[in-house]
Amino acid sequence: MGKGAKKTTTSGDSGSTAGKGKGKGKGRGKAASPAKGASTVKAAPLRGKAAEKARAAKEEAAQARNDDAVEAASWSDLLRVRPGFRLADLDPSSTPGFDGKKAEGKEVMAGLQERLGDLQERLFAESKGGGRRSVLLVIQGMDTSGKGGIMRHVVGSVDPQGVDITSFKAPSAEERAHPFLWRIRRALPRAGQLGVFDRSHYEDVLIVRVHDLVPPATWGRRYNQINRFEQSVVDAGTTVVKVMLHLSSEEQKARLTERLERGDKFWKYNPGDVDERGYWADYMEAYQVALERCSTDAAPWHVVPADRKWYARLAVTNLLLEALETMDPQWPAADFDVEAERERLALTP
Amino acid sequence: MGKGAKKTTTSGDSGSTAGKGKGKGKGRGKAASPAKGASTVKAAPLRGKAAEKARAAKEEAAQARNDDAVEAASWSDLLRVRPGFRLADLDPSSTPGFDGKKAEGKEVMAGLQERLGDLQERLFAESKGGGRRSVLLVIQGMDTSGKGGIMRHVVGSVDPQGVDITSFKAPSAEERAHPFLWRIRRALPRAGQLGVFDRSHYEDVLIVRVHDLVPPATWGRRYNQINRFEQSVVDAGTTVVKVMLHLSSEEQKARLTERLERGDKFWKYNPGDVDERGYWADYMEAYQVALERCSTDAAPWHVVPADRKWYARLAVTNLLLEALETMDPQWPAADFDVEAERERLALTP
Repeated sequence: MGKGAKKTTTSGDSGSTAGKGKGKGKGRGKAASPAKGASTVKAAPLRGKAAEKARAAKEEAAQARNDDAVEAASWSDLLRVRPGFRLADLDPSSTPGFDGKKAEGKEVMAGLQERLGDLQERLFAESKGGGRRSVLLVIQGMDTSGKGGIMRHVVGSVDPQGVDITSFKAPSAEERAHPFLWRIRRALPRAGQLGVFDRSHYEDVLIVRVHDLVPPATWGRRYNQINRFEQSVVDAGTTVVKVMLHLSSEEQKARLTERLERGDKFWKYNPGDVDERGYWADYMEAYQVALERCSTDAAPWHVVPADRKWYARLAVTNLLLEALETMDPQWPAADFDVEAERERLALTP
Repeated sequence: MGKGAKKTTTSGDSGSTAGKGKGKGKGRGKAASPAKGASTVKAAPLRGKAAEKARAAKEEAAQARNDDAVEAASWSDLLRVRPGFRLADLDPSSTPGFDGKKAEGKEVMAGLQERLGDLQERLFAESKGGGRRSVLLVIQGMDTSGKGGIMRHVVGSVDPQGVDITSFKAPSAEERAHPFLWRIRRALPRAGQLGVFDRSHYEDVLIVRVHDLVPPATWGRRYNQINRFEQSVVDAGTTVVKVMLHLSSEEQKARLTERLERGDKFWKYNPGDVDERGYWADYMEAYQVALERCSTDAAPWHVVPADRKWYARLAVTNLLLEALETMDPQWPAADFDVEAERERLALTP
C-alpha cells in the first residue's frame, strides 16, 4: 500500500536548533577543505595523461593560492570529471583533498554536518518565502560501494523534513511502460528540498547497457537525452550534484565476504551480486562512457574514491556543502507586519 | 512536480555501522527508563480524581518493582491515556518518568538513539526477509508544540532510508473529494518502515470540529471510523504509537514571540497562529474528546508534556524504543546457501 504513498514534508514547524543564524564559513574544519591551504591538498594519484593534466592543475592551483582573493581549489574542482578523465587512472583507495587518516576524517565530519544542516534549513526556509530552488544529489556506484552509508551518514545528518530519498530499483511494469525518464521526473525534489537519488536514470545506460536490456540504438540515444533532461532540471532551479562512488573490485570482494560472515549482514547479501562481478570490466566501461558523455557544465560528474568509507562520506559531504554555499540560500523576509503581529500576540491571554 | 513523487527506500545496501549485533538492553540510560528504579520515576503532577488513580498506579508499580521479574512501569504505561484521563489535569511543564534536568536528559539521548537506530535497522532487515511489520508514529500538537523538533531530533536520529515522514496540511481539492481517511491510507508505512505522521487524521476531529468545517454529524461519526481504521492498520502488522505533545498556552505565546524576534525565525511565523489562540479552549476540548474516544487497546494515545522540548524528545524516543523492543525484530536468516556462496565468491577474480 505504501507504493503510491507520497512523501510530503512539513511546513517548517520545526524546533530545530541548528542554523540559528550562524555566520558563514563556520564549522568547516580546515583540514577538510582543500581550499584552505596547500598542506591539506593531496592530489589523486594519477597515471599517464591524467598525471600530466593533474600537474598542470596543481600548478594553477598553487598560483591561485598565492592570490588571497581566489579560492585555489574546491572539492568539486578536485573530483570533477573533465575531458580526458580516465576512471581506470583513479585509485579507489586514494583520498584526494584530504591529507589525514580515518580518525581525523571522522573528526571534521561533525562540523561539516552542522554547517550542512544550517544551509539545508536555509534552503528549506527560502522556499517558504517563495524560493523555487532545490538540490538533487545523485549517487551511483557498484554494489557495496557505500551508497547506503552516504544515505545514513551524510544525508541522515540533516533534518529529515527537508530530505526526499528515492531508491531506484529494477523498474516496475508500470514504469517500463513509460519512457525511462518518467519515473525520474516524478521523483525530482520540490522547492526547498534536498532530493537524493540512490541509483538513478544512469542505470539506464549502465546495467541496461551491460546486459543489453534494450537495443544499443536505444541506450545509445540516452546520453543526449539525459544531458537535455538534466539541463532542464538545472534551468528549473535545481542544483544537481552527481557522484560516482568508485570502488575497487578487491574491496567489493572483501565487503561481500563480510556479509557472508555475519548473521546480521546476510539480509544485505544477494547471490546475484557475485554473478555481476563477472561483468566488472563491462560496468567500468559503461561508467567511463556515462561519465565522459554526461559530465556537463550544467551537471558535472564527480568521482569519489570509495574504498575508504570514511573518505567517501567526507567527500560527498563537502561536495554538498559547496553546492549549498554557492547557492547561498537566504532566510526569507517577513511577509507580515512584524510590529503589528507582536502587538496582536501580546494582546492574547 | 514533486507532488506525485513517491518516496521509496533502499534495499539496504547500507554501510550502516549501527546495530552490529549489539545485545538487547544496551545503550538505554538507567536514568531514562522509569522501569529501572524508583528513584527515576517521577509521576506526573495530577489533581483530583486523577491524583487518586495515580496513587493507586504508583502503589501497583511499587509492588511490581519488588518483583524482579516484572517491569514495574514503562513510558507507555506512564503516559498512556486511560479511562478518566483529564488533559486539563496534566501539567505541560512536568517531566513524568524523568527525574533529571535538561543536561541529563540530553545526555541519555545519545544512547537511546543508538538503540533506536539498531532496532529500526532490524525491523528494516526483517522486512527484507519477508516480514510484514512496520511502525507508525502519529504526532499531534498545537502550533509550536515541537512536532518539527521531534522529526529532526528523534526521527532524524535513525537511518533516513527506513523512515517515511508525511506532513498533513489542509487537504487539497483532490483529497477533499475523497473520504477523510483516503490520504491517510495512502501514506501508511510499508513493511519494515518507520512511518511518521506530522499531524494526521486527527485533524479531522480537531481543527475540523473547532471550526465547523463539516457538519457535527459528520465529524461525530469519525471517532468510531478512526478506531476501526486503526484496528485494521494494527491487524495488518503495524504498531501504532500515538503521541500528543501537550503545550501550555503560555509557552506557545513565548515561542511565537521568539519567532517574531529573530529574522531567521520569521519564516516559521504565521499570523493565523495568533487567531487560533482565540480558540485554545475549544482545541483543548476537541483534544480531550479525541484522546478519550480514540485511546484504544490496539492504538492507545500518549500525552507528552511539551513545555520542555528536551523532555518531549526524550519521552517520544522512549515510547518508540519500547514499541520496537516489544516487537523485537529479528535479523532474517539467509535464504541462500552461505557456504556455497562463500565458495562462489572466492572463485571470482
